[in-house]
Amino acid sequence: MFQKSIYKDRRSVLKSNVGSGLIILLGNEESPMNFKDNTYHFRQDSTFLYYFGINDPNLVGIIDVDANNEFIVGDELSIDAIVWMGRQTTLKEKSAAAAIDVVLPSKDFSSIISNALDAKRKIHFLPPYRGENKIKLSGLLGKSIIEVENGASVDLIKAVVKQRSHKAPEEVAELDKAVTLSAEMHKMVMQFAKPGMSENAIAAAIQEYALNHANGLSYPAILTVNGHILHNHYHGNTLKSGQMVLNDSGVETKMGYAGDLTRTFPVDKKFTSLQREMYEIILNAHKHAISLLSPAVRYLDIHFESCKMLATGLKEFGLMKGNVDDAVAAGAHALFFQCGTGHMMGLDVHDMEDLGEQYVGYTETLKKNTDTFGLKSLRLGKQLEPGFVLTVEPGLYFIPELIEMWSAKGMFKEFINYDKLEKLRDFSGIRIEDNFLITENGYQLLGKPLEIEIEDVEAIRATAY
Amino acid sequence: MFQKSIYKDRRSVLKSNVGSGLIILLGNEESPMNFKDNTYHFRQDSTFLYYFGINDPNLVGIIDVDANNEFIVGDELSIDAIVWMGRQTTLKEKSAAAAIDVVLPSKDFSSIISNALDAKRKIHFLPPYRGENKIKLSGLLGKSIIEVENGASVDLIKAVVKQRSHKAPEEVAELDKAVTLSAEMHKMVMQFAKPGMSENAIAAAIQEYALNHANGLSYPAILTVNGHILHNHYHGNTLKSGQMVLNDSGVETKMGYAGDLTRTFPVDKKFTSLQREMYEIILNAHKHAISLLSPAVRYLDIHFESCKMLATGLKEFGLMKGNVDDAVAAGAHALFFQCGTGHMMGLDVHDMEDLGEQYVGYTETLKKNTDTFGLKSLRLGKQLEPGFVLTVEPGLYFIPELIEMWSAKGMFKEFINYDKLEKLRDFSGIRIEDNFLITENGYQLLGKPLEIEIEDVEAIRATAY
Repeated sequence: MFQKSIYKDRRSVLKSNVGSGLIILLGNEESPMNFKDNTYHFRQDSTFLYYFGINDPNLVGIIDVDANNEFIVGDELSIDAIVWMGRQTTLKEKSAAAAIDVVLPSKDFSSIISNALDAKRKIHFLPPYRGENKIKLSGLLGKSIIEVENGASVDLIKAVVKQRSHKAPEEVAELDKAVTLSAEMHKMVMQFAKPGMSENAIAAAIQEYALNHANGLSYPAILTVNGHILHNHYHGNTLKSGQMVLNDSGVETKMGYAGDLTRTFPVDKKFTSLQREMYEIILNAHKHAISLLSPAVRYLDIHFESCKMLATGLKEFGLMKGNVDDAVAAGAHALFFQCGTGHMMGLDVHDMEDLGEQYVGYTETLKKNTDTFGLKSLRLGKQLEPGFVLTVEPGLYFIPELIEMWSAKGMFKEFINYDKLEKLRDFSGIRIEDNFLITENGYQLLGKPLEIEIEDVEAIRATAY
Repeated sequence: MFQKSIYKDRRSVLKSNVGSGLIILLGNEESPMNFKDNTYHFRQDSTFLYYFGINDPNLVGIIDVDANNEFIVGDELSIDAIVWMGRQTTLKEKSAAAAIDVVLPSKDFSSIISNALDAKRKIHFLPPYRGENKIKLSGLLGKSIIEVENGASVDLIKAVVKQRSHKAPEEVAELDKAVTLSAEMHKMVMQFAKPGMSENAIAAAIQEYALNHANGLSYPAILTVNGHILHNHYHGNTLKSGQMVLNDSGVETKMGYAGDLTRTFPVDKKFTSLQREMYEIILNAHKHAISLLSPAVRYLDIHFESCKMLATGLKEFGLMKGNVDDAVAAGAHALFFQCGTGHMMGLDVHDMEDLGEQYVGYTETLKKNTDTFGLKSLRLGKQLEPGFVLTVEPGLYFIPELIEMWSAKGMFKEFINYDKLEKLRDFSGIRIEDNFLITENGYQLLGKPLEIEIEDVEAIRATAY
């Protein structure tokens, strides 16, 4: 945990931003795999971590804005539980470490809520994303599950997003650590991957690294020779000479902060000339996006600029044609780059995604475009501010099914050279991703720099086998 | 998946055992970590796997006993999803591999159920253990969450338990594979653990092994120098000379079958003489329990016999005194062995625990003892039958908090030598666990035998560092 004044101060700011009412922040419960007591690795709710810091299940944090007090609802271990689990720091002690003096037993929870309901006080809660917490809220508030799913407090969401979006120095230090560990994990993979190895063996080694050096992975690793498959948690292939490996993985620190890096490197010791050309196109788009990072720039515009750089490269190569600005405005580049250039990062790898992308990545006046292919997956569009932490991750993906579909419909044929594309439909995909802090004047790369230039990647690969 | 006739036959038996009504078997959904789309490793529901074999989320299996038909409710990937996830085997094809011809889209699910409700047909479902499935059932059946939690069909539970309790040859082969892989994982740990290493590094290596060679771990590993802490997923200690390591871990095969082994070995290359004496006491109890395995014996009696052997050893050592049979009948041994000698094992490590221990491990006439310390954690009591697969795992645990409590109250002082015990309160704990199939005439050890005798364990440790 951070020092206790940090939690106290965060809650003070929250109280002042929300203004009035009773704020309920549900911690997570254990999550069952195949029966109740066989549980997944416990992951605390990030907002609960942010305001209370206690990494245990079955807790609720309550902040009474009107009475200006705050407490934890939860139970101390019984003597039976101590026999099974050993003596531990008490909940009272853990709460004190977050500057919370009052711990109430769980049995008091429902009367706290019913008193507030009787007094017709505003009860603020965040959108629940786990079934167990939906059920808990539904029971407490006497609302249906659907009412609970749709009844989160917009005031509370906005106040939490406002606070969590700006990373304080102690958070930046944690994120820096998360990215450095993630970079070392990536370097390890580049150092040992070789032809004949299974994706699965590499994915398992990634998992081991993350568990051994941190709190595990911040999201399920994408480790694949099919980099064009974007949602890909299949690890059943064997690495073959001539292929590339796309590794999109990051660790989570003990404090819960995420890293999120991607590198794409050849299974062989060197890129082929085609791989090299494609890699350079995407590296240019990546560098261009980075160069634009600063406050007062909309990330949506950085996304467009990055897409234009990508389209320029593809035009030079001969896969695209016509006016690049028009092509990107029309969305033709999305045949090669279907998703967004980046997203916010923090206690969640897609930071605060549970609170809603519209609130986290957009504004009242800049609504998320949920219809346009190529934009509906852009999680961050709004103007950047100092303290934002985000990813830059342009990609170049040759998706056979999509090429087939667009080609059959003759989509954007004024911008796309389908004849030449036919030869590359099985090229797979490349993504390069780094993490940045937005500063007063520009940006700062988080973590120890991870090899990115072709010659540096090849220098590591030369020693791999 | 197994061959398709196996699933068809299993469903036929189920239909005939349940007799009438509409059986709904919910597959699992994805389980969110810190936001909806950041999910844990998917684990299918075991009963769904047993009858349908399809390892994908968001499916429901329906068996209409009266109409004698069965179908899968679920959706094929949209073209959008194929773009993101790549082309895959269709749900129709996967269902056909389980001998299911009819796949209905999810949108039809509620009308199927409401028709059955309108016709006042009996709808059978199993006890849901995940929040998401509780919510799904509650919505479909128009019942409250509590009604859903308490409304499972006892007829269906009993029919499923009856079938899943008897492992068919193809299941025994999978379980044998799970235990062999688990044994190799244990041997690996004995081969590399050494003083100065962190528990966490070993736990991470276990995780890597399980992911690389199988479908991951069948339960969170217990890897600890504090073997007396029974529910222990803390891995923060460093191995020190003079300590022992307790490793309770097992893998799950790709088909979902579990292994569950425990070994306790010295951090040093050799046991100390005290460790050796304690290890031999528990090894004798282990061997004695195994020797009694056969049909027509109640596991409760094997548990008592194993406890008596343990108490005999403790009496010879001087920690217990008086008549051993009386001591065990009174429950005095439970100061050293607080939990049960074993449990059923199959698609779940505690097989079918979601269906209720009373149904799985006990009978109408042999009710589970839920009051007595030392018996309330015994998951299996009933008479064994050929085809049962179970664990044998006696243990010897010195729990300071419990010793303190009992000693202060003078509990069972006619059977316990508290003076001598005082010197052993920090000894920690030892458990030894193997997995067995009950055969027509006796039992069969599952998996490749894992070193268990002191000299064999020491022979491995001699090569560790």
